[in-house]
Amino acid sequence: MRQSSLFGRTLREAPSEAQTPGHRLMLRAAIARQTAAGLYTLLPLGFRVAKKLEQIIREEMDAIGCQEMEMPVLTPAELWKETGRWDLMDPILFKLRDHSDHEFLVSYTHEEVVTHHARSEILSYRQLPVSVYHFQSKGRDEARPRAGLLRAREFVMKDAYSLDADWEGLDRSYRAQHGAYERIFRRMGLDAISVESDAGLMGGDIAHEFQVLSESGEDRILICSNGDYKANMEMATRRVADGGVERVSAPAMSKDGAPPRSEIATPATTSIEQLEHRLGLPASAFLKTVLLRAKDQIVAVVLPGDREVNEPKLRNLLNVGAISFAGDTDFAKAGGVAGFVGPVGLKAR
Amino acid sequence: MRQSSLFGRTLREAPSEAQTPGHRLMLRAAIARQTAAGLYTLLPLGFRVAKKLEQIIREEMDAIGCQEMEMPVLTPAELWKETGRWDLMDPILFKLRDHSDHEFLVSYTHEEVVTHHARSEILSYRQLPVSVYHFQSKGRDEARPRAGLLRAREFVMKDAYSLDADWEGLDRSYRAQHGAYERIFRRMGLDAISVESDAGLMGGDIAHEFQVLSESGEDRILICSNGDYKANMEMATRRVADGGVERVSAPAMSKDGAPPRSEIATPATTSIEQLEHRLGLPASAFLKTVLLRAKDQIVAVVLPGDREVNEPKLRNLLNVGAISFAGDTDFAKAGGVAGFVGPVGLKAR
Repeated sequence: MRQSSLFGRTLREAPSEAQTPGHRLMLRAAIARQTAAGLYTLLPLGFRVAKKLEQIIREEMDAIGCQEMEMPVLTPAELWKETGRWDLMDPILFKLRDHSDHEFLVSYTHEEVVTHHARSEILSYRQLPVSVYHFQSKGRDEARPRAGLLRAREFVMKDAYSLDADWEGLDRSYRAQHGAYERIFRRMGLDAISVESDAGLMGGDIAHEFQVLSESGEDRILICSNGDYKANMEMATRRVADGGVERVSAPAMSKDGAPPRSEIATPATTSIEQLEHRLGLPASAFLKTVLLRAKDQIVAVVLPGDREVNEPKLRNLLNVGAISFAGDTDFAKAGGVAGFVGPVGLKAR
Repeated sequence: MRQSSLFGRTLREAPSEAQTPGHRLMLRAAIARQTAAGLYTLLPLGFRVAKKLEQIIREEMDAIGCQEMEMPVLTPAELWKETGRWDLMDPILFKLRDHSDHEFLVSYTHEEVVTHHARSEILSYRQLPVSVYHFQSKGRDEARPRAGLLRAREFVMKDAYSLDADWEGLDRSYRAQHGAYERIFRRMGLDAISVESDAGLMGGDIAHEFQVLSESGEDRILICSNGDYKANMEMATRRVADGGVERVSAPAMSKDGAPPRSEIATPATTSIEQLEHRLGLPASAFLKTVLLRAKDQIVAVVLPGDREVNEPKLRNLLNVGAISFAGDTDFAKAGGVAGFVGPVGLKAR
C-alpha cells in the first residue's frame, strides 16, 4: 500500500475546532476523522498505529496469564441496577431501549458483565485466581468532548478484571497488572509515571494511573521532592503537624484562639480577589463558601480563600456521579446571595 | 495457558434454550455465554477462534488492496435521516439519545458513515478506486434472536465498501471482493456456494451471498440441475412459457378461459387444507388472500393456495423495512373476516 493511495487526505491546516497540538496533528496526518462530536473514525493510518499499540498490550497481558475474551458493547440495565450504577452514573451513560422496552446501556465499563459471567463460571475457589481482559468500544456521554481522541465519547478501552480468592490474591493480581503496564509503557517508548489515583465510581481501595507529562494535559500530579510519593492531585494526601495524614484540599479551619465574631460590611465585593484588595489580607485569611448541586441536594463547601474545590474528592465524599455549580434558584433556596454566601445560617447541607 | 485454567467451564448438558446443534455445542464447549437475549460474550476459547477467522479475512482483504480502518459503533441520526433509512429500518435499529437530546443509532451497517468520510476525503476521481473495510460491533434489534451467534442482536461484522469512479470500476471492485471471499471460505475449509441474493435495504443491483448447506439453516437456495444458476429463494427468478423471466413466487393467475364466477358456500372452512379436503381439489387450484400490515397500511397478497408469501420480495416491492401479519382490527378495517378473505371488494391495497 503506497502512502499516496491511503484513504484519508493529509491537510495543510488543521480545522479550527482542533485546540490541542495532538488533535491538530492527528487531523493533519489523516489519523482520524470526526463523525459527530466526540465520535471518531480511525482512518487506515491511525488504525495501524492503534493495532500496534493493542498488540503490545495483548502480549504483556498474555504474559501474565490474563485471558483475552470479548464482552458485548450493549449491556442489559438489570446488571447495572443491581450495583446501583445505573442511576449513579446517569449523566455519562448512553442509555437505550429495545423495541420490547427493555433498557440497555452502551457499556461504560464491564465490571457488571464480568461479575455476571463469574457467577456461573466460577464454582470453587480452586478455580481462582483468574483474570480476563478485552478490547472493546466504550460509550461515555461526555458533556464536553475535546482534544480529539483524548476525551472522546466512544473509544476502544482495554479493560482487565481479576477474580481472586482473598485479599492477598487480589494484591498479587494487582501487582502483576501494574508490572505489565510498566513494561507496556516502556515498550511504547513513553516515560510514564505511576501515581496514586482516585478509584472513583469504580470502587476499591487502591488505584494507580500512569501519567505522561505534557503541556496539553488536563490532570495535575504531585511528586514529592525525594521521589517517594506520587499522586494525582485528585487523590493526594498531605502530612499535617500532629503526624496524621489529611487530604490536601480539606478545609483547614483554625479551631483554637479564634477572635470573637464581628461583622464587616463588604458591599459590591463578590470575589476573594476583591476582599484581598479591600481588606489588605491574603486570600488564605478568608473562608470561601461554594454552593454546589449534587443530585437534588444543594451542598455548601467551606474552604480557605486560596483553594479550589476538588471535584473528584467531593464526588467521592458525597457518593454521587456528578456535581455542578449552583444556579440562581439554588442560591435563593439555600438562603444566600451569589457572591455573599457564608456558612452561618445557610440552609444547605 | 492450560485448557484447565481457561475462564469458562464446559458443560455436560446444554441449557434447554439452545435449540440448534451449533448453539448447544457452543455453550457446552464454553465458546460463548449470553449476557441478555441475543447478546453474547465470546469466552477466551471462542475469542481465539473468532480472531483466527478475522485474520484470514484481513489477509485476503489486504491482498486485494482493501484498507482496514475503524468506524465508531455510534452513528449520528442525521446521516441516516439523509438516506431515509432512519425511519425505513426503524424496527430493527437500536436508537438512543445523548443528554443533549441528539439522536444516534448503534450502527446496523456503515454505508452512511463511509459516504460521510468519502465526501471530504475524495476530491477527485483520480483518487478512485479506493476500498475500505473494518471489523466492528453491529446492533440489530432482532425480534426473535435465536440459534446462538447466528441470529444475535450484537455481533462483529466485517463490512467493506468500495468507492468507484464509474460502473465498470464498481464491477471490478465487486469481482475482487467476490474472489477474496471465495478464497476466504476455502481457507476456512467451508464448502460455500455463492448464490444470487436480495440486496434488500442495502440497495444496489447485484448481490451475492455465500451459503453453506446445513440441516439447521434458515434460508433456502435454489440450484439449477445443470449448475449454471444458483440463487437464494428470496431472489430466485424463473423461466416462464413465453421466454420471459418472472419471480418464482409471483401470483400466477390464469387470465384466459376462466369460468364464470360463481359462489360456493364453505362454512367453517378457514384453511386451504380444509378446502382441499372439502372440494376434492389440489391446493394449487385455489387462490389464497393473505392480509399483512406494512407500516400503517394493510396490504392484501393474492397467491396460489400452494404457495407462501415471500417476505423479502414483498418488503422490497413495498419498500418497507418490516411487515407483519394483520391482526383482528386490521381485518375489520379491510372489510374481511380472518379465514374468509378474498380479493373481491376488499378495502386493502
